[in-house]
Amino acid sequence: MAQAWTLKSRPQGTPTLDNFELVGIELPALEPGMVRLANRWLSVDPYMRGRMNDVKSYVPPFAIGEPLQGGAIGEVVESSADGLKAGDLVLHMAGWRDEAVLPASAVQKLPELGVPPEAYLGQMGMPGMTAYFGLLEVASAKEGDVVFVSAAAGAVGSTVVQIAKAKGMKVIGAAGGADKCAWVKGLGADAVIDYKAGPVIKQLMDVAPGGIDVYFDNVGGDHLDAALATAKERARFAICGMIEMYNTGAPTQLRYAARIIGARLRIQGFIVSDYMARAPEFYRDMAGWAQAGKLKREETVLEGLARTPDAFLGLFSGGNTGKMLVRV
Amino acid sequence: MAQAWTLKSRPQGTPTLDNFELVGIELPALEPGMVRLANRWLSVDPYMRGRMNDVKSYVPPFAIGEPLQGGAIGEVVESSADGLKAGDLVLHMAGWRDEAVLPASAVQKLPELGVPPEAYLGQMGMPGMTAYFGLLEVASAKEGDVVFVSAAAGAVGSTVVQIAKAKGMKVIGAAGGADKCAWVKGLGADAVIDYKAGPVIKQLMDVAPGGIDVYFDNVGGDHLDAALATAKERARFAICGMIEMYNTGAPTQLRYAARIIGARLRIQGFIVSDYMARAPEFYRDMAGWAQAGKLKREETVLEGLARTPDAFLGLFSGGNTGKMLVRV
Repeated sequence: MAQAWTLKSRPQGTPTLDNFELVGIELPALEPGMVRLANRWLSVDPYMRGRMNDVKSYVPPFAIGEPLQGGAIGEVVESSADGLKAGDLVLHMAGWRDEAVLPASAVQKLPELGVPPEAYLGQMGMPGMTAYFGLLEVASAKEGDVVFVSAAAGAVGSTVVQIAKAKGMKVIGAAGGADKCAWVKGLGADAVIDYKAGPVIKQLMDVAPGGIDVYFDNVGGDHLDAALATAKERARFAICGMIEMYNTGAPTQLRYAARIIGARLRIQGFIVSDYMARAPEFYRDMAGWAQAGKLKREETVLEGLARTPDAFLGLFSGGNTGKMLVRV
Repeated sequence: MAQAWTLKSRPQGTPTLDNFELVGIELPALEPGMVRLANRWLSVDPYMRGRMNDVKSYVPPFAIGEPLQGGAIGEVVESSADGLKAGDLVLHMAGWRDEAVLPASAVQKLPELGVPPEAYLGQMGMPGMTAYFGLLEVASAKEGDVVFVSAAAGAVGSTVVQIAKAKGMKVIGAAGGADKCAWVKGLGADAVIDYKAGPVIKQLMDVAPGGIDVYFDNVGGDHLDAALATAKERARFAICGMIEMYNTGAPTQLRYAARIIGARLRIQGFIVSDYMARAPEFYRDMAGWAQAGKLKREETVLEGLARTPDAFLGLFSGGNTGKMLVRV
């Protein structure tokens, strides 16, 4: 029998293992136009935390007692759909489980970019697209800009660092701890900030005395305030995530909010799904940079469906370098 | 001897009368190309508070012991400049004093829009331009939008209300106290919020259950947070002022900052001087609305140069309805 992780109860604050339950699920029959999948890789992402609250947002909340959803790479084990055959690897949203039966319209064959399948859940997938469109479109970052990115050792942030370098920008990445900072430096960042080593704002002022042109926000809170404090005139902020407040619900405290006025800052929130129609641009550029050896990738992999909640919880305790994944 | 208000000491927190000193000043000789002015009207504006701190910003800080500056309407009493003669009324920046001698390049003859001279320090001047370009350009407000504006009884906010109505928008104005709210309603606002009567966020949700498309911020703090909480998808915020934090220096607390992401908000700071080259558009539209009877104006007038610091301090205690002015 197939197994899936359900949301047993809504987390109050930081989620715990008690919020999740692994249950047996009945799969639908394989009707014409459908495929049966064995999942190989599951993605866990910070945005899923928001769907665990009973709050209307850009995606509906997860229902209690129902299987959770998320990006996954599955292998077709049985197909009654044209164009899909056993052995094909596909990207789909029926994650947090080991098997699924889905209509062909709900799966997408992996592009051929010469990277392993799991990369399509990270740098060559949704997190990579988030980095690409957030940096280049939302923040209008261009050659010569000084770019500050928070959570720079994460799936999105590490790709921001590398796209920025590939485009000729100066990059400052913030991450937690010496190991992650060293890894971010190894990706090409011109400077790194260890947010565990002292106030972000002071460190940012030290490494960017002339200020920043662009801030790519994955964290919110003190990182956002530091960016406000150091922003040059007409700097652009792409607001992608605020992981600092997803669990605590504590208000964001900004000492430098009034710089929005004096420095004429533009602060723009975005959702990567708005850019799906432009995925070919992303794949084209990323394939080129990958072939030129300009992209490094790292995954933090937990083994087995049983570890999926652990992987998810690890996102909030800094447990991952690069993309956090589960191998089924 | 001419007299001018100087900055005696930098305010810590809310300014007090002790921070200001009235002194006699020596005026320069009237050389060719210059005019001697008797000031008739002086402007005090919230942005001046920022210049009283010793902090680099978009305008340099006021110097201790030097005359303060600000918008003023002066009458030419003696002229050695072509095109300017005794009796002409001009707009200039040598406010906070009774007399001035200036080069003709530093003064501007008042446009002929059929309004009294003091209006060029308010609705037909810098505050009006701030409202016009902030609403229509920075926030891209258009017919049918639901617009929320804070400090709606102030010089800028009251003009935002009226321009928005003239352009076919729905307007919600926030102000402090029943009298100001009644006045804002009389300007045409569809709904008003008395921020002294209860939490802004709850009141805003009540009057705009479908959310807001545009927020014009003069206040920051709880008003900004309420706007974040109620913003529709792709709402635009024009950040013009944050008077709530000018004196306290306390951090802005935002419970709804993460809505920037989910609702794809655009938050843009601006300075009206960036739009000076486009002043003719402003004068053209405002003259049209004035002739059509769509613009109301109110001034809170204090009499005499001696009251200038009182007028300025009143800005931070809600002492003005409409534009705060000093008649010399």
